[in-house]
Amino acid sequence: MTLIIAGVVRVPPENLEGLRPHMLVMLAASRAEEGCLEYTYAEDIADPGLIRVFEVWRDSSALDAHFQTPHMTEWRSHWPRFGVSDRRLFAYEIASQRPL
Amino acid sequence: MTLIIAGVVRVPPENLEGLRPHMLVMLAASRAEEGCLEYTYAEDIADPGLIRVFEVWRDSSALDAHFQTPHMTEWRSHWPRFGVSDRRLFAYEIASQRPL
Repeated sequence: MTLIIAGVVRVPPENLEGLRPHMLVMLAASRAEEGCLEYTYAEDIADPGLIRVFEVWRDSSALDAHFQTPHMTEWRSHWPRFGVSDRRLFAYEIASQRPL
Repeated sequence: MTLIIAGVVRVPPENLEGLRPHMLVMLAASRAEEGCLEYTYAEDIADPGLIRVFEVWRDSSALDAHFQTPHMTEWRSHWPRFGVSDRRLFAYEIASQRPL
């Protein structure tokens, strides 16, 4: 079953520019994974430094594999240096999808 | 059934600051609606001016009502002036949800 991953992490706004290149690496590497249908980071319009994560995965095995990748380990290794915190993500199983 | 609305609209990056106050009005008014569980706008980290929309609604009747609100009409009335374009949204029916 298709899965959406959605939620947030927070970075001090003054650290966002330093973190950005590492985010771009993580985006590219994740999008290249088997079963990754969408993978995005975006900064909240109303709350600077609040990073909104949105991902779509073909199924749970693709998502499970994502957590075992070297780029996931590397991405998280940068978090302490840039003060990334408040990770809060949810996995949603998708029953249907239609253009709105 | 719970619904996620997710997708994008685009604004020329130089128009984002002018559009921002109207986005804040739309966020506040939508979040106050019956059945609105989440309503967010965020700017893509890799693509300036690409606005990522993420919403969660209790059910389709709440979502239907959202499209009939005065703040929706007002929000869209600002689009031509700020060059908002490329609206591309999807509605997903949610079968389950869990923290990740």
